[in-house]
Amino acid sequence: MDKATSVDVEMTKEPSSDTSSVWGGIDLGGTKIEAVVIDTAGAVLGHARHPTPGDGSVADVVQAMYGTLREATHAAGVTPQRLAGVGVGAPGSVDANKGTLSHVSNVGQGWKEPYPVAADLGDLVEGKVALGNDVQVAVAAEYRLGAGRPYRSVLGVWWGTGVGGGLVLNGVPWRGRGAAGEVGHVVVKPGGARCGCGRRGCMEAYAGRAAMERRARKAVRRGEKTMLFELMHKKGRPRLTSSIWSKALADEDTLATWLIDRAVRMLGAGLASAINLLDVEAVILGGGLGTRLGPDYAKHIHEAMRPHIFVPERQPPVLVAELGELAGAIGAALLGQPPMK
Amino acid sequence: MDKATSVDVEMTKEPSSDTSSVWGGIDLGGTKIEAVVIDTAGAVLGHARHPTPGDGSVADVVQAMYGTLREATHAAGVTPQRLAGVGVGAPGSVDANKGTLSHVSNVGQGWKEPYPVAADLGDLVEGKVALGNDVQVAVAAEYRLGAGRPYRSVLGVWWGTGVGGGLVLNGVPWRGRGAAGEVGHVVVKPGGARCGCGRRGCMEAYAGRAAMERRARKAVRRGEKTMLFELMHKKGRPRLTSSIWSKALADEDTLATWLIDRAVRMLGAGLASAINLLDVEAVILGGGLGTRLGPDYAKHIHEAMRPHIFVPERQPPVLVAELGELAGAIGAALLGQPPMK
Repeated sequence: MDKATSVDVEMTKEPSSDTSSVWGGIDLGGTKIEAVVIDTAGAVLGHARHPTPGDGSVADVVQAMYGTLREATHAAGVTPQRLAGVGVGAPGSVDANKGTLSHVSNVGQGWKEPYPVAADLGDLVEGKVALGNDVQVAVAAEYRLGAGRPYRSVLGVWWGTGVGGGLVLNGVPWRGRGAAGEVGHVVVKPGGARCGCGRRGCMEAYAGRAAMERRARKAVRRGEKTMLFELMHKKGRPRLTSSIWSKALADEDTLATWLIDRAVRMLGAGLASAINLLDVEAVILGGGLGTRLGPDYAKHIHEAMRPHIFVPERQPPVLVAELGELAGAIGAALLGQPPMK
Repeated sequence: MDKATSVDVEMTKEPSSDTSSVWGGIDLGGTKIEAVVIDTAGAVLGHARHPTPGDGSVADVVQAMYGTLREATHAAGVTPQRLAGVGVGAPGSVDANKGTLSHVSNVGQGWKEPYPVAADLGDLVEGKVALGNDVQVAVAAEYRLGAGRPYRSVLGVWWGTGVGGGLVLNGVPWRGRGAAGEVGHVVVKPGGARCGCGRRGCMEAYAGRAAMERRARKAVRRGEKTMLFELMHKKGRPRLTSSIWSKALADEDTLATWLIDRAVRMLGAGLASAINLLDVEAVILGGGLGTRLGPDYAKHIHEAMRPHIFVPERQPPVLVAELGELAGAIGAALLGQPPMK
């Protein structure tokens, strides 16, 4: 059984003549596992979704991934053994070369030490498994098949619980030493708000949904009024979800509007910094909040970037991701595909 | 006569077997023009320097570039016609594909409209001229022949009058749509100090020598004490040069120390943001102030980055540029070299 492989090669946007091969992709998330089967052109032939085993061991998680993939292959009318390759997009710290995943806090029981997820899953699917960062693979999918189609170089920003990111530079996913794309940890205010990562002043400390919720709870303790937590209780949710934020904005809730406006301002500064450094052609906005708030907020973010862009006549568009909840699984499946020219 | 060409290919670090070809490089600056002749391995065979014609037209500037290059070829024992290619590193807005230079404010009389510098110079040297951004080519030279030798991916930060930058990613200079590397215009404080570029809160607005001088003059008008301007008058300089800042720091001048400490803090935040985004292996510190303040300040900058680095166990070293004042001219000469594998 092969180790996971990571190949940084140019991704083609041309359809291939090989139409017989199919690939599997798995998006491992904290609450759910999505699996797809795609053909060479990236079309989804089958799809399945399962909840992530809440308190499962790593072995349980791998079994659940396999089960979800098997369902997706069934939906596509093939067997797991027919897959030319399987890719996995995962959170935490991914070592794509070793096929291991470590520092995972939100999946199953969580685990810190590197675990050979690619090898374990590879035993079940009888084939090669490639492992990648969940946001990086979603951005690669958007580059090839979604909002990034017209461009060669894009920055993806995944606005959700945290703020993740991914880069494609001249057709090649840029991973640096493995951790590139952490646009959420661009410093927008030295010595500023405490971030979930433990540092201060990161963009995520202002724009991440978890950070905004912490800030909202603090405001309520201080006696500020908001409908955010009423909506949460009414919907029976333990957290302020993207749809709750969206509803509160629509109803012009003062605190929600203030927090989201501040998030947009900080996203503008941080993303403009990234553009000044990299001069890529476009920004793709994904993630739970990004896709929920949609084109209106993509426009607000662009307006917040504008005063900071160094070459003002070449404003990069800010586009909403097009592949929705399947971007991660499709991007994972693309990981398994061999380099094409 | 050929148009200027820009070829983004992997730069080799291996010595070539071709030892007969020589290349010319010109670094066009606001006060001086440096020219070198190098061999295939990048060794400097000849060098010349001339002041930039203070109020000259573009044609005068091109003539002065040619004169300086001719002297460098003479020193190397060859004729300009023997050069396999000539590269020019220039400030302002470079269109490498068209070989034009526009928006130049500090060279000769300056000019705004695109001027075909590469074609004009090409007529004189009877050969191919490649045009590149002055900081980007200096960073490429440091990557290949200087402090960046051990690495595949580096961020160069040129700390001088302004704060420029350049990127080499996996052996390839990264220029984006032509303006990548503007690390000086990473936003470190939204709504903060006014920058020379007209925007607010850029790293350069705190760390650039020109910005620090403006801030020092303001402090003096408010009655603060400093030796900075006495040193300037004593040395007969119209501006606070890097050596004046260095002397004031050595003498523990309060204002100079406060301004430089603030600059270091902002460089730390901005460079850490760039590392979190790109995860390159090393930072190379060049420019007038960077090379003058040297390893001690490279260390201070690294310490200022440390609290913001997302993967703390993989701190990129901050290294002082090694090629000194010739980095730009050598990097320009490398521009002229054909792709090598």
